[in-house]
Amino acid sequence: MPKKVKTTVEFEGRVSEILVDIPDIETPLWGNDAELDIVGHPIPRVDGDKRVTGAAKYTSDILLPHMLYGRILRSAHPHAVVKSVNSSEAEKLPGVKAVISAFNTDPIRWHGSSSLFDKTARLVGDEVAAVAAVDEETAADALELIKVDYETLPFVTDMEEAMKDTAPKLWPNGNVVGGKPSIYERGSVSKGFAEADLVIEETFRTQTELHTCLETHGSVAFWEGDKLTVWDSTQAVFNVRDALAAALNIPSNHVRVIKQYMGGGFGSKLELGKYTVIAALLARRTNRPVRLMLTREEDQMNTGNRPATLQHVKVGVKKDGTLTAIELKSVNANGAYLGGAGCGAPYREMYLCANVRTEEYAVYVNTGRSRPARAPGHVQGTFGLESMMDVVSRKIGMDPLEFRKKNYATVNQAQTNPKPYSAKLLDQLYEAGAKKIDWWNRDKSRNSGDFHSRKRGVGMASQIWGGGGGPPAYALVKINRDGSVNVLSGTQDLGTGTKTIISQIAAEELGIALADVAVDLGDTETCPFSGSSGGSTTAASVGPAVRTAAADARLQLFEYAALELKVKPEELSSRRGKIFVKSDPQKSLPFKEAARKAGNNMIIGKGFRGPNPDGYSLNTFGAHFAEVEVDMETGRVTVLRHVAAHHSGRPFNPLTMTSQIEGGVIQSMGYALSEQRVIDPASGIPLNMNMENYKPMTALDVPTIEPILLTQVDEHCNTLGGKGIGEPPRIPAAAAIANAVADAIGIRIRELPITPDKVLAALKSSVPSHKV
Amino acid sequence: MPKKVKTTVEFEGRVSEILVDIPDIETPLWGNDAELDIVGHPIPRVDGDKRVTGAAKYTSDILLPHMLYGRILRSAHPHAVVKSVNSSEAEKLPGVKAVISAFNTDPIRWHGSSSLFDKTARLVGDEVAAVAAVDEETAADALELIKVDYETLPFVTDMEEAMKDTAPKLWPNGNVVGGKPSIYERGSVSKGFAEADLVIEETFRTQTELHTCLETHGSVAFWEGDKLTVWDSTQAVFNVRDALAAALNIPSNHVRVIKQYMGGGFGSKLELGKYTVIAALLARRTNRPVRLMLTREEDQMNTGNRPATLQHVKVGVKKDGTLTAIELKSVNANGAYLGGAGCGAPYREMYLCANVRTEEYAVYVNTGRSRPARAPGHVQGTFGLESMMDVVSRKIGMDPLEFRKKNYATVNQAQTNPKPYSAKLLDQLYEAGAKKIDWWNRDKSRNSGDFHSRKRGVGMASQIWGGGGGPPAYALVKINRDGSVNVLSGTQDLGTGTKTIISQIAAEELGIALADVAVDLGDTETCPFSGSSGGSTTAASVGPAVRTAAADARLQLFEYAALELKVKPEELSSRRGKIFVKSDPQKSLPFKEAARKAGNNMIIGKGFRGPNPDGYSLNTFGAHFAEVEVDMETGRVTVLRHVAAHHSGRPFNPLTMTSQIEGGVIQSMGYALSEQRVIDPASGIPLNMNMENYKPMTALDVPTIEPILLTQVDEHCNTLGGKGIGEPPRIPAAAAIANAVADAIGIRIRELPITPDKVLAALKSSVPSHKV
Repeated sequence: MPKKVKTTVEFEGRVSEILVDIPDIETPLWGNDAELDIVGHPIPRVDGDKRVTGAAKYTSDILLPHMLYGRILRSAHPHAVVKSVNSSEAEKLPGVKAVISAFNTDPIRWHGSSSLFDKTARLVGDEVAAVAAVDEETAADALELIKVDYETLPFVTDMEEAMKDTAPKLWPNGNVVGGKPSIYERGSVSKGFAEADLVIEETFRTQTELHTCLETHGSVAFWEGDKLTVWDSTQAVFNVRDALAAALNIPSNHVRVIKQYMGGGFGSKLELGKYTVIAALLARRTNRPVRLMLTREEDQMNTGNRPATLQHVKVGVKKDGTLTAIELKSVNANGAYLGGAGCGAPYREMYLCANVRTEEYAVYVNTGRSRPARAPGHVQGTFGLESMMDVVSRKIGMDPLEFRKKNYATVNQAQTNPKPYSAKLLDQLYEAGAKKIDWWNRDKSRNSGDFHSRKRGVGMASQIWGGGGGPPAYALVKINRDGSVNVLSGTQDLGTGTKTIISQIAAEELGIALADVAVDLGDTETCPFSGSSGGSTTAASVGPAVRTAAADARLQLFEYAALELKVKPEELSSRRGKIFVKSDPQKSLPFKEAARKAGNNMIIGKGFRGPNPDGYSLNTFGAHFAEVEVDMETGRVTVLRHVAAHHSGRPFNPLTMTSQIEGGVIQSMGYALSEQRVIDPASGIPLNMNMENYKPMTALDVPTIEPILLTQVDEHCNTLGGKGIGEPPRIPAAAAIANAVADAIGIRIRELPITPDKVLAALKSSVPSHKV
Repeated sequence: MPKKVKTTVEFEGRVSEILVDIPDIETPLWGNDAELDIVGHPIPRVDGDKRVTGAAKYTSDILLPHMLYGRILRSAHPHAVVKSVNSSEAEKLPGVKAVISAFNTDPIRWHGSSSLFDKTARLVGDEVAAVAAVDEETAADALELIKVDYETLPFVTDMEEAMKDTAPKLWPNGNVVGGKPSIYERGSVSKGFAEADLVIEETFRTQTELHTCLETHGSVAFWEGDKLTVWDSTQAVFNVRDALAAALNIPSNHVRVIKQYMGGGFGSKLELGKYTVIAALLARRTNRPVRLMLTREEDQMNTGNRPATLQHVKVGVKKDGTLTAIELKSVNANGAYLGGAGCGAPYREMYLCANVRTEEYAVYVNTGRSRPARAPGHVQGTFGLESMMDVVSRKIGMDPLEFRKKNYATVNQAQTNPKPYSAKLLDQLYEAGAKKIDWWNRDKSRNSGDFHSRKRGVGMASQIWGGGGGPPAYALVKINRDGSVNVLSGTQDLGTGTKTIISQIAAEELGIALADVAVDLGDTETCPFSGSSGGSTTAASVGPAVRTAAADARLQLFEYAALELKVKPEELSSRRGKIFVKSDPQKSLPFKEAARKAGNNMIIGKGFRGPNPDGYSLNTFGAHFAEVEVDMETGRVTVLRHVAAHHSGRPFNPLTMTSQIEGGVIQSMGYALSEQRVIDPASGIPLNMNMENYKPMTALDVPTIEPILLTQVDEHCNTLGGKGIGEPPRIPAAAAIANAVADAIGIRIRELPITPDKVLAALKSSVPSHKV
């Protein structure tokens, strides 16, 4: 039995003390890349062929015998009492098998004091009733036959309006979440402002961004007696299992949640969805499997968002560029139910500054709820902070990059944590990125466009994020008698390449070919626990567990090889398909031959993620540099180049890492330039709940992204020496683009997205200046 | 990592030396029943509700999107060269998606020197071609359109004919398997016969018995890219996986074999079936899932059988009843391909006798192949041996039971093995069974029928079998955060209650309620290895592994409980849902509360079956006593009472154990009285390939079975103190019935089944005598 040790873990803001297994198998930090055959190499997705040929089964591909199709009737009003639901006409429609609502089901608690089907709707899209029918068309027709008697209530969709005393209240205790802001202060900002040569104030705004996963949210639910199996498009099969069991008041071992392939989550699929419970209820009522996939419209309307923010920023600075104080007052449009994080984190952590204060409000409004969205808080906050740093540096006549270096917090100067960073090479990223974009000659760029019709500019921004991962995460590695290997872990591959990285780690540790490893993830019944795939923690949490499991399995196999080679197991090593005597590598046995000797004495290695090393803050850093061109006649901004320099320790797979960076930058370009949820303030109705009008970037909108990977191993983070990369590329990209736009046109756009109308309006009303 | 130790294992006649894990968690032998809350109690099947409501999914219930239905075209001739297969008409039939045969597929080796689709058919029913179509009817129609050009060859279906030099040869080296008999001798039978006062010779014959599983054999095959998933009605998911991977030349980790619920195997589902490979080939060719379930006719024709035997027996005995020699010469109708075991084992092992010789022939004939059938060899051999013991005892004027006691091999007198039995209470079983049937007053029974029209008699027989189980077998026990528990093991529940017993063992060891445990079995991808479910080894092999896994999980949970209770983990115990301090049971914590404390630090206990204790032969014993009534006008035999006394150590669940005994006795009554495969010798065509004409027992044919369970713990067999019971009740039942018939009518029927025509013919030709 492994030894356990007490450690503290932080997840989604909650710190708890837990007992963590310490692996009883030593897996020392992997050495330099030359020692590695598979990890660190640019390996294409192991399941890429299945994904592109359609063999991969996504939740929406699950088709069970006698399956019904579920649809949800959603509130037409942003705020209303649901007085009655009359489903008699809908039930008469041939092919309709069940209609459920608050009026014919037991209440199931949701969002604290609300319910699954709440008798108060708080946004256009709240769940009012649901239908199961023999096909999707019949289910859709049935929705139209359900008569709902609403008593409409006053509503508010704008966060600043919602903070006023006169605003309609969503909840009894008022619209400010928790009744008060979340406040942080270190040092004294008033003292800091007093010490400053210059105090600058600015206001930045960001829009509501939708996650826009290519695969919409949805579930297939199937009861076998009292046992429920659910295929779910989720980032956290165990969260969904436990929450679903609790919602249905059944034990967790009566619920099996499976996620095979997935088309993105970005934070919107971390928790149990109402649609999942509804599918389970409809399946139980009809005694048939039920598939309930949200339509694109529903998905955009009510599966979460990155909340809009308002950021009042005040910065004190000395003439030499030293920051003396940073102050943020922010408001966060939380939506109708409790949602995601505030945006203050980068303000508190990014720069060396003794006096920092953040005051963050989250506000209830009658719109879809905010949820974690790829680097929650950081994306919004970094836009404000890094725009502000540009403003300040220009105001004091300092190069923006030099200004950032001036206020650089070194590896031993983590700002909100007494522990040093395990690694911080942001200064090297600055150099590498600046060189690539030719930062010191960027005036040439600015003057290279047609001065009248198209202007060019270059901007940059930086990023800090976590991504070090941690316990608990588990894996099993099974060696079959033909030497093929199965890896099982309860983590999820959201489409990011987790399965590939896990395959690499297992193959590397076992010393076999990648093709000999098969990986199963995302099944609560068959896989050992792993946490939600969020926070860029997956690879760094699960990876070491997989490595330990492989090491455990390998040592067991060595016992059989040792019998053959007439040595002790500890004298053996393995690489490239061979088990050999370390002191005499010519004495060897094929790995597969050793497996055959073990026969049915199945080798199952068990691995767990050990605690993070004491004494370090685990963070990842990046710096982006963008070059844009602004069409002065149309106001349209085009990104010409985007350099994304990142360091997350050893890259497990440069190819998947590059994909993450490219995807993150592309999403950020949409965030910077075009994406925004639009709600009609008069009716509360969202207006652009589709891909066409929501305007994510298309392939034609983006240039070739230019990633720079620093590959230096982080010796302190874990036994792999590497950390996550999922969220980092989302964080600085929009700010870099906004700074480049300001550089190009001499006018700063302080509100995202930087759409042509805003550019044109700014050009009309302002005098261009290069101190923007 | 657990320690490993070398041990030898024997399976299906092969002895091999392996390394076996020694559990690092101590699980001392469970004490007396009073200490146990769940194990040893008569608990109904945990999945009984699912089985009777139809919620349980058997292989034939698997329905996948776009699934096709497979059917096999089988040889119409008992021996023929398949010169060509013309499928062009079949392929034109609308709905037919593929037709495969030896002429359009790569050869796949089968039965050593034969092939999947062999160009020589060796029995009526050999696989010639296969079809996949959109429904079963179309597939059946297509079979009729396939034109096969056969060149018929001479054939032989009778084993004695087949041994003649002039017989048509099935294989180049002749019809005797291996070219010679298998011979065993200890002491000297010629010396033994010389020492005897009386030497008696008899010839016994047994028929070909079909397994007649309620669920026919079959598979559903589904490819996802290069990954094959198969639902299979099998007793050995890992055997099927590895053999299927080898047949298709793909790695084992590209094949997943799942068996959820199952309707019986009885030995006929231990290995990969041709239908499984054919389903996989059809699925690959059509790129659609294929379900291929055999029809009842196919199932009876070509999925194995208990082979017919001819047993020449010669016994030497002294006047006082001492056996001086036992000699057997047997022939075994092996079928067209290598099959099951000979019938000599009981002759060699059952009685104390210094001089024993067995000479066993297996013979190829142009019929379906023999396969292991519930107690292979022993059922046939025990009929011969125990009939012979009756003959001998009556010849020397000794009571048959007294005669058996006279030649009793005590616990330290195992006959073919120098090691003593771990437990042998057969003498107590004799006493208990004799008392129950009122053996000493059985003359009253014989005289209680109407002497002219119905005669009654009482007979008995004994049994030895293995059933001790052994490694390798593995289990995982997961404790969820709500305290519910999942158990995973790669074993199979054939319908016998394995899932129930595993649930009991896990719940008992964890100290929780049975309802808190869910068990998943029979999935090669998700479950740790366990061997085939055969040889009555399942509970005794997997049970200790489950117990160790539960103990491991419990100890891990105790670490969290110890934090709360402020004691050391080793000071804790658990029972009835509570974890308590052993020295102060009032200090306690609910099990579920401890699980909540552990949270997501998922507790996974890993358990393995340790080696069997050195120094013992692990066997199970039984004695049956039957009372029959023979209708002297019709020849019909009715079993009036059947007492079945067994000892397999501690019964894990008296209810499932009783079910096994009842099922075994009922099958044996069919074997004794009515079941037999009938082949037309002129055409080689089997004539009764259906339930009606094959004549298994029906509910109306059988009396209430009277099981007697000796519950004494076997202290030496394993940490549970119990062994298997699957096969033992099949072994002595037919002999006991045959002996009762002889007792009733004074004429011995030496050939099974004892059908009315045989009884009437015997009554006509013989003078009844009570020395039969």
